[in-house]
Amino acid sequence: MSQREFDLIQRYFRQAVSPAADLPVGIGDDGAVVLAGNTNLAWVMDTINEDVHFPHDAPGAAVGHRALAVNLSDMVAMGAQPRWMLLSLCLPEVDEAWLADFSDGLLSLARDSGVTLAGGDTTRGPLSVAVTLLGPLHGQAVQRSGARPGDRLLVSGTLGDARAGLDIALGDGHAADAVESELLKRYLYPQARLALSPLLARHARAAIDLSDGLVGDLTHLLSASGVGATIHSQRLPRSRALMAHAEEESDALALSGGDDYEILCAVAPEAVETLVREAAAEGIMLSDIGEITQGPELTVLDRDGQPVPLEAGFSHFGDDDA
Amino acid sequence: MSQREFDLIQRYFRQAVSPAADLPVGIGDDGAVVLAGNTNLAWVMDTINEDVHFPHDAPGAAVGHRALAVNLSDMVAMGAQPRWMLLSLCLPEVDEAWLADFSDGLLSLARDSGVTLAGGDTTRGPLSVAVTLLGPLHGQAVQRSGARPGDRLLVSGTLGDARAGLDIALGDGHAADAVESELLKRYLYPQARLALSPLLARHARAAIDLSDGLVGDLTHLLSASGVGATIHSQRLPRSRALMAHAEEESDALALSGGDDYEILCAVAPEAVETLVREAAAEGIMLSDIGEITQGPELTVLDRDGQPVPLEAGFSHFGDDDA
Repeated sequence: MSQREFDLIQRYFRQAVSPAADLPVGIGDDGAVVLAGNTNLAWVMDTINEDVHFPHDAPGAAVGHRALAVNLSDMVAMGAQPRWMLLSLCLPEVDEAWLADFSDGLLSLARDSGVTLAGGDTTRGPLSVAVTLLGPLHGQAVQRSGARPGDRLLVSGTLGDARAGLDIALGDGHAADAVESELLKRYLYPQARLALSPLLARHARAAIDLSDGLVGDLTHLLSASGVGATIHSQRLPRSRALMAHAEEESDALALSGGDDYEILCAVAPEAVETLVREAAAEGIMLSDIGEITQGPELTVLDRDGQPVPLEAGFSHFGDDDA
Repeated sequence: MSQREFDLIQRYFRQAVSPAADLPVGIGDDGAVVLAGNTNLAWVMDTINEDVHFPHDAPGAAVGHRALAVNLSDMVAMGAQPRWMLLSLCLPEVDEAWLADFSDGLLSLARDSGVTLAGGDTTRGPLSVAVTLLGPLHGQAVQRSGARPGDRLLVSGTLGDARAGLDIALGDGHAADAVESELLKRYLYPQARLALSPLLARHARAAIDLSDGLVGDLTHLLSASGVGATIHSQRLPRSRALMAHAEEESDALALSGGDDYEILCAVAPEAVETLVREAAAEGIMLSDIGEITQGPELTVLDRDGQPVPLEAGFSHFGDDDA
């Protein structure tokens, strides 16, 4: 979907939503929060389609892994603990080898993530996988809308790897060396930052997961919070693999490459040190890439302190942007 | 999916499921039940695909209505109250008129059903709509597995109408008269039996919603309960419209036509009278079509008391049954 189309579609559904006491967080965030009895539950659903969110020759295990990982990542961004899963699998045909591979990719990630498959359905049609996850919050819901001027912007891991990996997947699909293999793996098997989730609940003011690229997703967060931001391109974390593979394009890939499923969060200055330390103890690197401003502009400064002209954010490769 | 394919797919996912204290009902029922804090929540997800679950020229409002109705029906069969919804909408293109029509069909049924749209996502791809619903149980979960020999089998409303309506939809899509119009409407705008849900929770031992046809869905219930049944074809409730339109085929349509979204339940003999009376007070007719036996066979007797040879249950029209 292009941004324009996306906005248009949202219009039809947002209008329907009125605040409800048992719906603390509704449309417009990474997930919803429902109040059931005395428990707040985060609830997300994301669908991935062949030729849009993954190439048609992606391994079954990668498709199963991705269908769950993209949803885990939304739960992390909400500060929630994914606990239960429903799966809706749409298959053009029943290929036992593919199905074994798919279920292995999905269920091994589920086990590693403490998620129990609770049901779902299977239908016939073009290959598509919808997953919905439900689970308790670690504390307060972390929303996109909580960022305040002066907050620092932190991002987990490294950026741009998945987009470089996608190019390899769309080529012959085979990695020529260890570097390409690492990038391809970053694309095919995204790792949701589960250990970050309780830390976000304690220390972050706002968060979003990076599925569409840093600039695009940061724009969503800024818009929801009614603020702006200044970020510095030379501070964007980049892997050795990305630098070895595509150093010249690394600014662009880190700014607008999608599918990294890292977490971007806004954190009050006084909370940064603790969050960074606690994340490091979980093996997760957080990089300070800039700060929240009064806005509403998003400014990206290059290494000479000059503003970088911004392109539109990444759309999934099958989308034809208007 | 054919039954054989369906069984095969289920094998890959059922194996993964171990009992969990916070998952009172898992894979294999109309929905799951999760225990969140002190609250049991029923949770369902069903996807409908163009050319499989609805014809490609079905009105947008009918597609939106159906996507929710099929899920409401699963919640009813669990004895649950649908409360919140997530929507995953996959569109080949953005057609504003269609989208307005679709959202109207979906959201007006949501309002009528007390369901709040809590979020979701939109992707590009072949037309497909996944809906997930969550909500509290009215009491004990009503499962497929609770039927006991001697229980009566009751079915709501009338059977076979939707299948006759589908034939009209697959023809020129226009109803020739009031009778065809009624049947077409039964197919395009299925009505979940929401008012039946609390009554099932109080009085039924087992229930399932009729999406694939009476014989097919009854077989699922019998298999889950480890019992058999004897039903009488002349007792199957048929509408005047169906009798006027297709009297000769009405036995076959009532036995194996799909998409009625009526409720089939097994009820202890002493609870039948109360349930029938309370349902009638809600405007829902329940018909006694037979009884649960030791089994494991399902026997259908014709009006002469002779067993009817059983065909396989209805599959959605786009499926190619093996």
